[in-house]
Parts: sequence; structure tokens; C-alpha cells
Amino acid sequence: MLTFVGLGLYDECSITIEGRDAIDSADRVFAEFYTSYLAGTTVADLEAFHDVEIEVRDRAGTERDPVPVLDAAREDRTAFLVGGDPMISTTHVDLRLRAHEERIDTRVVHGTTAQTAASSLTGLQNYRFGKATTLPFAYGSGGVPESVLGVIAGNRERGLHTLCYLDIEAEREAYMSAADAASRLADALEDSDGNDTGDASSETLAVGIARAGSSEPLVRADRLSMLASTDFGDPLHLLVIPGDLHHLEAEALETLAGAPTDLL
Amino acid sequence: MLTFVGLGLYDECSITIEGRDAIDSADRVFAEFYTSYLAGTTVADLEAFHDVEIEVRDRAGTERDPVPVLDAAREDRTAFLVGGDPMISTTHVDLRLRAHEERIDTRVVHGTTAQTAASSLTGLQNYRFGKATTLPFAYGSGGVPESVLGVIAGNRERGLHTLCYLDIEAEREAYMSAADAASRLADALEDSDGNDTGDASSETLAVGIARAGSSEPLVRADRLSMLASTDFGDPLHLLVIPGDLHHLEAEALETLAGAPTDLL
Repeated sequence: MLTFVGLGLYDECSITIEGRDAIDSADRVFAEFYTSYLAGTTVADLEAFHDVEIEVRDRAGTERDPVPVLDAAREDRTAFLVGGDPMISTTHVDLRLRAHEERIDTRVVHGTTAQTAASSLTGLQNYRFGKATTLPFAYGSGGVPESVLGVIAGNRERGLHTLCYLDIEAEREAYMSAADAASRLADALEDSDGNDTGDASSETLAVGIARAGSSEPLVRADRLSMLASTDFGDPLHLLVIPGDLHHLEAEALETLAGAPTDLL
Repeated sequence: MLTFVGLGLYDECSITIEGRDAIDSADRVFAEFYTSYLAGTTVADLEAFHDVEIEVRDRAGTERDPVPVLDAAREDRTAFLVGGDPMISTTHVDLRLRAHEERIDTRVVHGTTAQTAASSLTGLQNYRFGKATTLPFAYGSGGVPESVLGVIAGNRERGLHTLCYLDIEAEREAYMSAADAASRLADALEDSDGNDTGDASSETLAVGIARAGSSEPLVRADRLSMLASTDFGDPLHLLVIPGDLHHLEAEALETLAGAPTDLL
């Protein structure tokens, strides 16, 4: 039996009771932290909290050598721990399909996610978000791929909000900050807007979110150019580019995130 | 202090450890079950599980008379429990803004959501979903609003998946089934397609999901016309209309949801 367990957003208390119970009753516990990452805890703390030994798999181990996990799941009750929800990354969908091929039963224990927190913490309504996108580190000299700009533009044309996930490079413990993301987007939108339009990028409203799922998340709405010089503190961060704002959404951004009234 | 606590998707074990701790340390505990609903538990079971008394607020109590909750939060550590994530409904955003107006501190404890489970259980990638929509009970004689059809068509034009939330009428304990939703959509798409197009609605692939967050969710991918006669069992249900399918998504729908290969 292979149970995929979502660890949720932030620390060892972000897991559900159901997830804790699944770990309790597991004979073997694997985890990976390269597709997602719990900034508020460590593997040692998770091991102590659940009183188990956790076998951490890196990218190569999970993607190119899933056999040890499948072997364990064939023999024993095996839990595979992932930050957020365990099935958001294609890697784990692939692992689940391999288990099914080998007639190993699987189960999914959901976790809290950045997708939900992005609307929940900002007051932006979840059904008014369009397609999400990811800002990658590896792109020219700090730029933004056309595909990302296309997603944002496509959503804004239809009045929809865009959630930008920010890149994680687990190997070098690098997590893109909301300030870095805002700076890249400000530059990219300026390039695409040119100088002669009224919709200058420096006036684009965005919302940076830090440490979603912790007891003290930071949520700040401002011009991209202002967010670019904001210290959001420890990871993980998210960036949201709002589309059209309903009255309650504008009020929420002002009250909960300090949005300047002239931008609303 | 007013702490909004998400109860998660299904039963008393769907809450996070952080949420349980927030209830443990609360002096007063309110809840509402009309915007969302935990099909796998009861208020009495939640009270027993957390060893607290829960004051259930109905729609009128929450929306038109928030004063008792705000009064409690001004004096005591007060928890407000909501199925799923506590800030997904605008009602609770409004309550949070009122608390801020009155200088009452607030905190949000996230919960697992249908939004995440819809991608997680189907293998459809979360960043390939467009705007979500809700199929309402109250519309003509079992029909589908144009706005809903517009959302689905807009997403499909761009190759994106659509999550359809299904209506809940808590007062009469009515929860729209995935079969009812599939039947309505099959009829509505047939009307809009006419008889002379190849894309007949009866051939439209959809995915019904029942009891997300339980230990035995049902996930079934098939033609709308087939889903319309499928017994999905107890609530809550969801319906997803896939857009373009990547290879792994198609494989997941076939392996995890029994999608007919001729539709993939």
C-alpha cells in the first residue's frame, strides 16, 4: 500500500489529522522536498514530531529510481510525504501510475496548498483566478519567459487574477523572493508596454505573499516597483497579479494587504 | 482574537493539527455549514472529537447578524469553523474585514479544498485549469446558465480544464450530484452544438468526483451521457470538464478514472 501524504504549507502542524494517522500506521516513510518545501520545519523535526525515520529521496531518486519506493509499498504500508498536496507535481502522479501498473494499492491524503492560500489570504475570490504560472530562475539574465507574460496578459484580458508560483531550486536552497519576482515582472512589462502607454508597469498592482500557512504570513499589495524593494523575509513567497477587482476584493486588498487606494 | 479555521474536505480528521490546536485553545467556537459541508461527520461528532461546544450559525446569522461572533472575538479567543478553507467564501472575507474595522485581530488556518482535490485525484495538472464555475440548482427547469457554458467554452478554447463546483442548498440538505450535473451539461451542450457538428455533447469527456478527502473517493471519467447515469453515491460531488490532455494526464484519466481510450 502506497499512501501519498500532503504535509501542507508550512511546518509540522500543517498536516491533517488523517495525514498524521497515515504516518503513524506506516511501516516505511519516504519524503521528497525538491518539488515543494516546508520552510517552517526540518526533516529532523518532522521525524521527532511523528516519531518515525524518514527516508528522503532527491529528484534523481524519485524520478529515475522509483523502484525502492515501489518495492517497499509492495511489502509494507508505505507513506510518501510531500509538501502541500502530494499529487500537485507530475512526478508523483507518475509514481502513482507506476504503482497501479504493478497492482499496488494507492491512497491520497490531501494537504493545504499555495493555490488555496493565495486566494484565502488576499481576499481575491478563488473562482476569479485564471490559469496559474511559474516564474523560473533560469531564464536569461533575470528576465521573464514570454509564456508567463502570455498567461498574465490572457487572464487580465478576461479580468482574471494570476497566481505566479516562484521557482524553487532545492539543491542550492534557492527560493525566488516576491521582491525578485516583482522586479523581473516590472522590467518585463515595461519592455512590452513601451514608454508611450498609460498602463506603465510601475503602476501594475500586485500582491506578494510570504510564509503562507504560518501563524504570521505577510501579505502586501502595491505597485510592482514598490514590491520589488519590499523585504518579505523568509521563504516561501508567492506573487499574485490581480485582474478586475470586485468591491469586496478591493476592500480586502486595502484592509488586509495595505494596497494604495489610488490603485484600486 | 478571531481565528478562522478550515475543517478541510470530508470528516473530523480532515482538519490540520494547527486547526485542531486552534480549537483546543479557543474559549468560544462557532461554525457554519451552509457555504460548505462535511459529508463524513456531524456537528455532534466534531464536538466530541474536539471536546468543545460548537455554536452553529446559519446563513442569516452569519451574514446579517455577525455581531455575536464579533462580540465574542473582542472578549475571548474565538474560533470560527468552516468546511474546506475558511476564506473561500466571500461571507467570511466580509466577516474578517468587519473584525479588522473593529480592531479585532484575525488569523486564518487553512484547510484542504475541492479546488486542490479536483486536480490531485484526477491527475489533471493544477496549472492547466482555467477559471472555475458553479452549476446552480435554481435555473429554469434543470438547465445550465449561459455564464457557466461561457466559462467552459472559454477554457476549452485555450485548452484548459474547468472545475465545476456543484450547488449546495443546506436548508433542504440538497447537494447536486455529478450525474445530475453531467445530465444538465449534456443537454445544454447538445442544444448549443446543434445536430450538425462533430463535437456532439454525448461525446464530451468529463470527470465526476465523489467524496474527495475521504479514504475512498470515487473518480470516474466518461462521456457526459454515461456519467449522467452513473451512481456516484453519497455527497459531495464535483465535475471536471477537461481541456487538452497532456500524455500523463490522459494516462491518469485512463488508469485512475477508467476513461474510455477512444475519448483520449
